Amino acid sequence: MTDKDPRELQFEESPARPRGIASDIARRGDITRRGLIGAGLGVAASAVPTGRAFSAAETESDSNLPPAVPQWQKEPGAPILTPPYGLPSPHEATVVRRPRAGAKPPTDLATYSLTPLQDLHGVITPNGLHYERHHAGVPDIDPEQHRLIIHGLVDRPMIFTMEDLTRFPSVSRFHFLECSGNSSPNWTAPKPELTVQDIHGLLSCAEWTGVPLATVLAEAGVRPEAKWMLAEGADSAAMTRSIPIEKALDDALLAYSQNGERLRPEQGYPLRLFLPGWEGNTSVKWLRRLKLGAAPFETREETSKYTMVMPDHTIRQFNFVMEAKSVITFPSSGHRLAAPGFCEISGLAWSGAGKVVRVEVSTDDGRSWREAALQEPIMTKCLTRFRAPWRWDGGEAVLASRVTDSSGYVQPSREALLKVRDVRSYYHNNAIQSWRVASSGAVTNAG
Amino acid sequence: MTDKDPRELQFEESPARPRGIASDIARRGDITRRGLIGAGLGVAASAVPTGRAFSAAETESDSNLPPAVPQWQKEPGAPILTPPYGLPSPHEATVVRRPRAGAKPPTDLATYSLTPLQDLHGVITPNGLHYERHHAGVPDIDPEQHRLIIHGLVDRPMIFTMEDLTRFPSVSRFHFLECSGNSSPNWTAPKPELTVQDIHGLLSCAEWTGVPLATVLAEAGVRPEAKWMLAEGADSAAMTRSIPIEKALDDALLAYSQNGERLRPEQGYPLRLFLPGWEGNTSVKWLRRLKLGAAPFETREETSKYTMVMPDHTIRQFNFVMEAKSVITFPSSGHRLAAPGFCEISGLAWSGAGKVVRVEVSTDDGRSWREAALQEPIMTKCLTRFRAPWRWDGGEAVLASRVTDSSGYVQPSREALLKVRDVRSYYHNNAIQSWRVASSGAVTNAG
Repeated sequence: MTDKDPRELQFEESPARPRGIASDIARRGDITRRGLIGAGLGVAASAVPTGRAFSAAETESDSNLPPAVPQWQKEPGAPILTPPYGLPSPHEATVVRRPRAGAKPPTDLATYSLTPLQDLHGVITPNGLHYERHHAGVPDIDPEQHRLIIHGLVDRPMIFTMEDLTRFPSVSRFHFLECSGNSSPNWTAPKPELTVQDIHGLLSCAEWTGVPLATVLAEAGVRPEAKWMLAEGADSAAMTRSIPIEKALDDALLAYSQNGERLRPEQGYPLRLFLPGWEGNTSVKWLRRLKLGAAPFETREETSKYTMVMPDHTIRQFNFVMEAKSVITFPSSGHRLAAPGFCEISGLAWSGAGKVVRVEVSTDDGRSWREAALQEPIMTKCLTRFRAPWRWDGGEAVLASRVTDSSGYVQPSREALLKVRDVRSYYHNNAIQSWRVASSGAVTNAG
Repeated sequence: MTDKDPRELQFEESPARPRGIASDIARRGDITRRGLIGAGLGVAASAVPTGRAFSAAETESDSNLPPAVPQWQKEPGAPILTPPYGLPSPHEATVVRRPRAGAKPPTDLATYSLTPLQDLHGVITPNGLHYERHHAGVPDIDPEQHRLIIHGLVDRPMIFTMEDLTRFPSVSRFHFLECSGNSSPNWTAPKPELTVQDIHGLLSCAEWTGVPLATVLAEAGVRPEAKWMLAEGADSAAMTRSIPIEKALDDALLAYSQNGERLRPEQGYPLRLFLPGWEGNTSVKWLRRLKLGAAPFETREETSKYTMVMPDHTIRQFNFVMEAKSVITFPSSGHRLAAPGFCEISGLAWSGAGKVVRVEVSTDDGRSWREAALQEPIMTKCLTRFRAPWRWDGGEAVLASRVTDSSGYVQPSREALLKVRDVRSYYHNNAIQSWRVASSGAVTNAG
């Protein structure tokens, strides 16, 4: 069926033709219809990109088909199994983790890298692009030698090998993970050139598999007076947090797998505590020790760090739950709209308190809002992809999104957040994100 | 909180202690309870691995905790961002794609590689481990130069750039992909040493994002007399299949993303047709041409190949839907059970006809069956992870699973399949898979 006599052809130029597009969107079973109704997207209002038409006369014979048969169809491709563990196309070499533009992490070891949200689709983050946050670099742990210790206020202190832990009954769950410092650039210095990766890239999502922590704690026997649990990592920072026993016995996992395979080294290989919906640092990586106690352990990471400044300048500890947030990832800062017409606004919404139930988008700087379509399945404490059709008229526009979660909480404005915390309190910034679209099509951060 | 005076300690040896385990399994909200009830898993019957207890006296002080502080906690770890696209731990170097053990593909270019299902958890396949099947190697396609042509029985032949296509409204869906030749080794030569990777590794699962094909076809305008669609790949085999128009207008996607990032080269970068639930070769990779016609196009891949031999020795073309199948991935051939006691049986079930509604497991070579727990969310035409607790008594055992899908179809035995197709018809082998556990704990393929 290969074309035998390729030649370049001239194409008819034709205006974009929206025929059928609105009805096709509306009947997609996996997108709720209300988003489209809210959008008022009639056929006439839509200017969908349609490629170019070409003359029917040119298609009478397969051998005359435009475009020319490409070079890669004329010669054999590359053999497979090189490498046996695959990598992305070299054409996608810019889709990588990186530090924040213009920022300098404290050291090479106490640092972070950001997920390129502006280039991703759906909700899964490939493991190679999962954001990183380390306090003393990435230890190289031999899984055969790794141990988990459970002690303190338990009936029977215990020690486990990885083989012990993987023999327990397991569960798999899709959850986001977000650093409590995510989105802080917009709190402290919302520069126009910052991208969604720069601002919100301390956010990723995966299918996590592990043992329910409650199952393993039951083996040790939690004493009634145990109210808190110390979790310690095997990195040289001995990253350590105090966790209320209620969370430990609720949905906490001892996770050893992400997106099907064993944890990546930078995600805690071979074992991490995973606390769905809670700030990332509590999901202690390279987990080696759990100690049950009657009170919080007041570690460095809950006294000096990861605390919040209140409006009266007191300090609030233990800000565990990541509040509901949403962000438009396309179009976003650094993108450029090629031409006026149809544009699908797409983004991510999530809540540490449960499920996303509604996302609204605005294209007029918050003066009006309409409901976006939510991609199913909507899972608890997981990213949800939202989409809303938009017709860009070529003028200036300011785009924003706001999420409502299953607890009824609505994502606030920055002004609303400033009434409940001090301006120096940059953790947990879940304020509404706005992007400015210039008449040139260039998109920048509007804070 | 780092231990300051580490020293090796002696541990008390203790028998496995099942306390709490059954109730903990049963109250996991995301696993249905019926599997556990079916298992008859009482506390007394379970012998769960529990690690080892150690003396409470040794835990009075953090500085005395066993085991010794490991070397990797005493020195800084590796800096991050090397590489900016991450890779698995070197300790997981055996978890890779590879050809079938003992088999030799026809050429380096017309070949395949298999997903290591025995090492994976959950349902997502990391992109680096997604199985491959190529007819002429992997072309290196410049996405800027790639075009999709739609012609034939349409109102207006059209040509699209990748930018045209990604501007269309998109959807994201979790779906399995399976080669129609998957599982054929058990049909033709079920050797005991074959692993689940060897036998069933032409199976993977991802979150796919793309444009509903119906949306794009509506732009070209499908004529009423169009009943079939030819899909052609831009590889040098010009891999070509005929697709009924009903499927093209149902849930077919023009996919450009898998698990969040752009398609991998070996999965059709930059564009593939994706037909949920249908045999993998119909999801044509490197898609460059769709031609609408009144009848099937009778390509090589639907005459010489991918056809089925019936019991009367006639040939059946167009065997599109991948029938319901399930397979236990742990324990499976090549695994070795360390000791008698608790063992979580875990596996994958799927159906091209819809959702998995039930999986039953047998540990006595099919004499009795009990229901496994299904991991939620259960998605259509997607892998579903099932699990069933088992107490291995140290004797010989034969493990098997069988799935029922939402159409009511039940996975058949090999004997049942042989009544409806010829023994030479090795495609679409969805017979029940059995694994033999020897008293040594060694597991082998039982066909």
